[in-house]
Amino acid sequence: MPILPQSGGKDFMETLLGCDKPYNSAKIVVFGAPFDGTTSYRPGTRFASKAIRSEAYGLETYSPQQDADITERDICDIGDIDISLGETVKVLQAIEAKTSGILHDGKLPVMIGGEHLVTLGAVRAFAKRYTELNIIHFDAHTDLRDEFFGSKLSHATVMRRCWELLGDGRIYQFGIRSGIREEFEWAKTHVHMHKFDFSGLEAVVHQLYGKPVYFTLDLDVLDPSVFPGTGTPEPGGVSYKELMNAVASVCRLNIVGCDINELSPVYDQSGTSTIVALKVLRELLLALKSE
Amino acid sequence: MPILPQSGGKDFMETLLGCDKPYNSAKIVVFGAPFDGTTSYRPGTRFASKAIRSEAYGLETYSPQQDADITERDICDIGDIDISLGETVKVLQAIEAKTSGILHDGKLPVMIGGEHLVTLGAVRAFAKRYTELNIIHFDAHTDLRDEFFGSKLSHATVMRRCWELLGDGRIYQFGIRSGIREEFEWAKTHVHMHKFDFSGLEAVVHQLYGKPVYFTLDLDVLDPSVFPGTGTPEPGGVSYKELMNAVASVCRLNIVGCDINELSPVYDQSGTSTIVALKVLRELLLALKSE
Amino acid sequence: MPILPQSGGKDFMETLLGCDKPYNSAKIVVFGAPFDGTTSYRPGTRFASKAIRSEAYGLETYSPQQDADITERDICDIGDIDISLGETVKVLQAIEAKTSGILHDGKLPVMIGGEHLVTLGAVRAFAKRYTELNIIHFDAHTDLRDEFFGSKLSHATVMRRCWELLGDGRIYQFGIRSGIREEFEWAKTHVHMHKFDFSGLEAVVHQLYGKPVYFTLDLDVLDPSVFPGTGTPEPGGVSYKELMNAVASVCRLNIVGCDINELSPVYDQSGTSTIVALKVLRELLLALKSE
Amino acid sequence: MPILPQSGGKDFMETLLGCDKPYNSAKIVVFGAPFDGTTSYRPGTRFASKAIRSEAYGLETYSPQQDADITERDICDIGDIDISLGETVKVLQAIEAKTSGILHDGKLPVMIGGEHLVTLGAVRAFAKRYTELNIIHFDAHTDLRDEFFGSKLSHATVMRRCWELLGDGRIYQFGIRSGIREEFEWAKTHVHMHKFDFSGLEAVVHQLYGKPVYFTLDLDVLDPSVFPGTGTPEPGGVSYKELMNAVASVCRLNIVGCDINELSPVYDQSGTSTIVALKVLRELLLALKSE
Amino acid sequence: MPILPQSGGKDFMETLLGCDKPYNSAKIVVFGAPFDGTTSYRPGTRFASKAIRSEAYGLETYSPQQDADITERDICDIGDIDISLGETVKVLQAIEAKTSGILHDGKLPVMIGGEHLVTLGAVRAFAKRYTELNIIHFDAHTDLRDEFFGSKLSHATVMRRCWELLGDGRIYQFGIRSGIREEFEWAKTHVHMHKFDFSGLEAVVHQLYGKPVYFTLDLDVLDPSVFPGTGTPEPGGVSYKELMNAVASVCRLNIVGCDINELSPVYDQSGTSTIVALKVLRELLLALKSE
Amino acid sequence: MPILPQSGGKDFMETLLGCDKPYNSAKIVVFGAPFDGTTSYRPGTRFASKAIRSEAYGLETYSPQQDADITERDICDIGDIDISLGETVKVLQAIEAKTSGILHDGKLPVMIGGEHLVTLGAVRAFAKRYTELNIIHFDAHTDLRDEFFGSKLSHATVMRRCWELLGDGRIYQFGIRSGIREEFEWAKTHVHMHKFDFSGLEAVVHQLYGKPVYFTLDLDVLDPSVFPGTGTPEPGGVSYKELMNAVASVCRLNIVGCDINELSPVYDQSGTSTIVALKVLRELLLALKSE
Repeated sequence: MPILPQSGGKDFMETLLGCDKPYNSAKIVVFGAPFDGTTSYRPGTRFASKAIRSEAYGLETYSPQQDADITERDICDIGDIDISLGETVKVLQAIEAKTSGILHDGKLPVMIGGEHLVTLGAVRAFAKRYTELNIIHFDAHTDLRDEFFGSKLSHATVMRRCWELLGDGRIYQFGIRSGIREEFEWAKTHVHMHKFDFSGLEAVVHQLYGKPVYFTLDLDVLDPSVFPGTGTPEPGGVSYKELMNAVASVCRLNIVGCDINELSPVYDQSGTSTIVALKVLRELLLALKSE
Repeated sequence: MPILPQSGGKDFMETLLGCDKPYNSAKIVVFGAPFDGTTSYRPGTRFASKAIRSEAYGLETYSPQQDADITERDICDIGDIDISLGETVKVLQAIEAKTSGILHDGKLPVMIGGEHLVTLGAVRAFAKRYTELNIIHFDAHTDLRDEFFGSKLSHATVMRRCWELLGDGRIYQFGIRSGIREEFEWAKTHVHMHKFDFSGLEAVVHQLYGKPVYFTLDLDVLDPSVFPGTGTPEPGGVSYKELMNAVASVCRLNIVGCDINELSPVYDQSGTSTIVALKVLRELLLALKSE
Repeated sequence: MPILPQSGGKDFMETLLGCDKPYNSAKIVVFGAPFDGTTSYRPGTRFASKAIRSEAYGLETYSPQQDADITERDICDIGDIDISLGETVKVLQAIEAKTSGILHDGKLPVMIGGEHLVTLGAVRAFAKRYTELNIIHFDAHTDLRDEFFGSKLSHATVMRRCWELLGDGRIYQFGIRSGIREEFEWAKTHVHMHKFDFSGLEAVVHQLYGKPVYFTLDLDVLDPSVFPGTGTPEPGGVSYKELMNAVASVCRLNIVGCDINELSPVYDQSGTSTIVALKVLRELLLALKSE
Repeated sequence: MPILPQSGGKDFMETLLGCDKPYNSAKIVVFGAPFDGTTSYRPGTRFASKAIRSEAYGLETYSPQQDADITERDICDIGDIDISLGETVKVLQAIEAKTSGILHDGKLPVMIGGEHLVTLGAVRAFAKRYTELNIIHFDAHTDLRDEFFGSKLSHATVMRRCWELLGDGRIYQFGIRSGIREEFEWAKTHVHMHKFDFSGLEAVVHQLYGKPVYFTLDLDVLDPSVFPGTGTPEPGGVSYKELMNAVASVCRLNIVGCDINELSPVYDQSGTSTIVALKVLRELLLALKSE
Repeated sequence: MPILPQSGGKDFMETLLGCDKPYNSAKIVVFGAPFDGTTSYRPGTRFASKAIRSEAYGLETYSPQQDADITERDICDIGDIDISLGETVKVLQAIEAKTSGILHDGKLPVMIGGEHLVTLGAVRAFAKRYTELNIIHFDAHTDLRDEFFGSKLSHATVMRRCWELLGDGRIYQFGIRSGIREEFEWAKTHVHMHKFDFSGLEAVVHQLYGKPVYFTLDLDVLDPSVFPGTGTPEPGGVSYKELMNAVASVCRLNIVGCDINELSPVYDQSGTSTIVALKVLRELLLALKSE
Repeated sequence: MPILPQSGGKDFMETLLGCDKPYNSAKIVVFGAPFDGTTSYRPGTRFASKAIRSEAYGLETYSPQQDADITERDICDIGDIDISLGETVKVLQAIEAKTSGILHDGKLPVMIGGEHLVTLGAVRAFAKRYTELNIIHFDAHTDLRDEFFGSKLSHATVMRRCWELLGDGRIYQFGIRSGIREEFEWAKTHVHMHKFDFSGLEAVVHQLYGKPVYFTLDLDVLDPSVFPGTGTPEPGGVSYKELMNAVASVCRLNIVGCDINELSPVYDQSGTSTIVALKVLRELLLALKSE
């Protein structure tokens, strides 16, 4: 049984594509949360942040879509937070603490999951800081159960837990195409659920303009043909271009923090899913209004 | 050389996603036909029904598209029929016998292939029962040869054999994008071939409304980006959403039996093709008018 | 996020190769413990019991080595215990309860992991029943740490926890070739560690003859060329034949319970590791003196 | 270290799908250029021509899209040219010589790469023969750098080198979605770059009608969901159908030579990318006006 | 459904490593029998001969073990025989006819399977020519059943069928480690079975010296660590070096014909199994006394 | 076409397992040479050093075999040297310069290839410094050709080039099992070749005791069952334990520099080959007498 290196240490990490500015001058701070402890089906998202960083070989820092370059931005990748295996409560505390620290330093936190439960850690920090926080949530799955296998803390309950922090009408979901009937029923009175695609997003962007928004992007909102490297692929998703247009729309808002999650590299041996995740992240980082 | 277990035995099978109603009260009966004896290129569809059942882990029983749940329907999975390896004639007899038995019991048979030749066994049973049977056929390939490598019984000849049972003008093909010239020529006077996509499907549905229809769905009608796990992937196919819309249209008809076929799980190590097949099957089962 | 089926239910399981006797008349009871919650490197052992059962297609029930057949023995596979994801304490309680129940019914429990921590749940049950319990432990790794990433319950600490239950000189380790220096130092005064191979096993068998022994077999004791499908492959291991000879020796003892663990099927796409695990299990089941 | 066989020898080659006419009577001559010596990220395009030929098993010679059949055309596959490993200059000379020879014999050369640098060898031959040569270039990447890692000859500089031969305004690029800012800036005054898709292609076809055009098709212009088997997959590409429509448009022009390149089979273990490349090539060969 | 090319045609084949002498002057004639129609578990041996030929890239023609070179021998590879898919009887007839023809021409036939049933076709030809024929059979499995799933012709019955042609005491088996009890019982009075390894081979070679021997080598006699690319891998097999020594011993006999079989390339994506098969074949061809 | 990052930069690298001492105080200096420009068969060794560093997750720093720990040694990993793609001459110059610099600083250089040609760069530096240099060479292949495809600089000629620098009788080869006849003939009068295994190694160690020795270890000396992840796997190699014993013997000599090479990670998707390479390197680093 080998030692898992202290992943936060500079010695053991690669830096995310072009995100090598000093922390002090950075406006955006990226960190990884390599946790997949409640994954019910196919684990492996713990390797996502590491894999995304390694793909620096496979992508340019420059985006012709936005005519912008990561190296021209003040972005610092501080590596992964340390994960206590099998200790879900501690992991969420660590994520909240890291997020709060970054917020305290006046910077915008961007988290790379991990399974979707990591979002809860971040949202706890934001909910304390912003009383009027809204969440925009892209996903194939509702994630709205109250319990899952007797547990309150799960990737299947994460948005329900966020709702408990924020209250009714503050979560806007898009791309949802999987869940149990009870979740869809419950959603009707508590969250704004947009099924299957991004219909209605423009109106939501108009409505939330200027308000603080946390943006959580579960990459399995993409169709599995584009993104097979995930724990629970769900056919019928959106295309890469549809996602990119939606990300661009969302980033016109006042995004105070965000995350991408649910890349599980081992399930796509062509490596394409990892490069999709990295390119989505690049476009997201460039689209954020970080001052 | 290990023993292949008697696959029909309950002890050795998993049950298809939520299809666990007793046979006697079931309105729809699902069975597998794990045969790939005439596959000319890449074999492996014999593992399809087993793989689809194992994907119960990866998909919900509830469909938000149809607001319906498999567990609320009277569906019984009776497992796979026993296959005599290398004995094509016997296999088709076994499929016909199983199909006839289910029909005799007043239930709707749904078969999981196997290669496409298994359809012939089922159609023989239906042709005896319905003098006015029509077939709707989704596929990348024509399957209209008279012989293939000297054999009358082949996945490449299956629709030609069905035509012999039904006569001219009773087979409606969609999505066809591969074959030899002779097949395309022959098709002009004997079947209704719609090339490349589902153009014309609405008119066909209008025309066949109320008549008995057998629906055979070769999953390679999908583009290989969506469904690489098949014996002869053919670029240029339909998308998952296009297929789902077409399935919904077909199911407005009086479908008296149906099958899906040509999943070959080993060629897609991400597992996505299997989950696509399962989700297509779930949507199909929910869309069938089973009373 | 799909629902994980209740894996203990007969409807969703296959039965292990030939182990289909009724529980009441069974002398040996097999169950799965699909838990990998503390795996630090590459997760996936949660799929081991399911994969091993599916390999019924690939192996005979008869062993020419022992001239014995699984179907002639009174063995019952009762399926997997339910796992609360991410709740390590509960999982160990469930394993202990299941093991105690089987012991109470006068049967010999055989567990299929999962990661190696599952052994602790079983040993707790045995330690309560046998005051003079000994453990024979085959493994590449020491598993003797006191803590691992701040946690007492981990696959890296499992034998240390067992030692706390049994005391000095009761654990006999073989094949050990990986750990930190502190573990090897600690082992000198607390356990009997035999490094690298099975040297000394005959003497141990002589010494323990007639005494109650729990046998835990971490399959990564095998060389990765034989068994690549595991979380932390460690080069320099034993061959299949060496392992089989050692298992035969151990089974001359009074084995009161045993387990095999650490198969992670996804990392060996040839399927060979799963069939190795199944064949080891077949030989183990046939070698156990179950009356 | 094994011997690489003399790949030009008939004994060691398969013939491309139906392209088996004698050289003397052939109007189109296909050859492979299995070179990947300057690939910066993931090598392997050296296996492309061999893999494409082997896919004869998986595709018909007849195209229902064009109602035409490869076997009815005068096409000769002469195998691969010999590659001096690690000697870029020699390789380009060999490609130029082969191309010039085919042109001298009054035939239309079609090259299968290899990495994209092989195009330079062919274009040198054409530039000497056609003073008014234009290039239509489909690609995800600009390939317009002046130097790459200190080298003038690279897959990243190939179109810049072609520009030196042809001058301003003679290169028409489509589908471009990756590069560094300097390339996009430089492109504005020297080439006609159409970003992201085939917008503007019809106008270009109108403008170039009747003029000699070399057509180079980097298959990574396709989205990685369709074509993951390439060295540097770039998300956000065109679909198979969009590409096919664009190829049909281009082939209305006076195409005097062409190539497809950048298939790297090992990165797509489903084999789909290879069959995509073969089908693109089949459609291209049938669309060329070869007299 | 694509056309399978006429595999016997020179245009569509590669030649086996260095086996390019004209048929007329050849002393050894190699051909492929790409049949896997009765494979019960994992099909795919139909691709073996094609894959072995393609590995010409990966192995030298010279053997330092034997200080001999394939190119110095009179060996001709005539390609694969045509296979009628799903027509087992016809396939065996074609193999018998091809073998008889080669024997009639005074040459030594060497067949590349395919599944093991192909051996029956060859043995039929030899049994007619040599009244005192013996068989040496290397395999993991007995292949001695009388019927398998109701069929007399199967890879599981092939040696039983050969026994019917030759009678008691003419088949010498080595390496056997899998079967059902009835086969092992039956073997005691009808064939010479040497279990698990090559013990006793030297005595058999002494005993058969000078007599006509057919040698059939099922490559799954190798341990799956060496050769995972096969339909039914069986742990506990021989090493590569053990096999090579045994092949050398056997080839001191009067081998009148031989085959290797059961490579299934798709199950070993490292390609190693294919190169093992090719190297075994190279050593076998060089060891045969062909005059 | 993406930018290959400047791999020598600390920002983009992980540090090799525990090798994190400052350069100034280090006694051993490790660097990578990610070059595979002359690989004739399957490229990919350019990814070896990166993959080995990433396996820090999967192996302990402590060796129970040697009772020693990497972290207790003065070892510094300085990352990879910059590679000019396709410019073989420049690459060898860079390796020589790097090696010379480390030697000048009084440290022992350890290089991670890359293909085997990288050894020539290092040996050039050593040959200038040690007039009596000897080489111990473990390999499956002779690497003794004078030219390969017209090139003097190739992985197939590397030991011939080294011989030109050192003269007759200074190269000791072990494990050789592949080459052309001419190489084996030539070897008889110019180098000490020990075929197939490590026979004779003890005598060579006795003979060379105290003399300066460069040790080059081509990992394909291992059997492909142990190490499939390499460009040209050659069946019949040594086991892991045989190699480790041989490495221990060699390290009793005055090793002035060494390298390991020819890991190609993509060909072993279980990851085992990479961990084998890392463990070999760990044992080698611990066995070197570095003062």
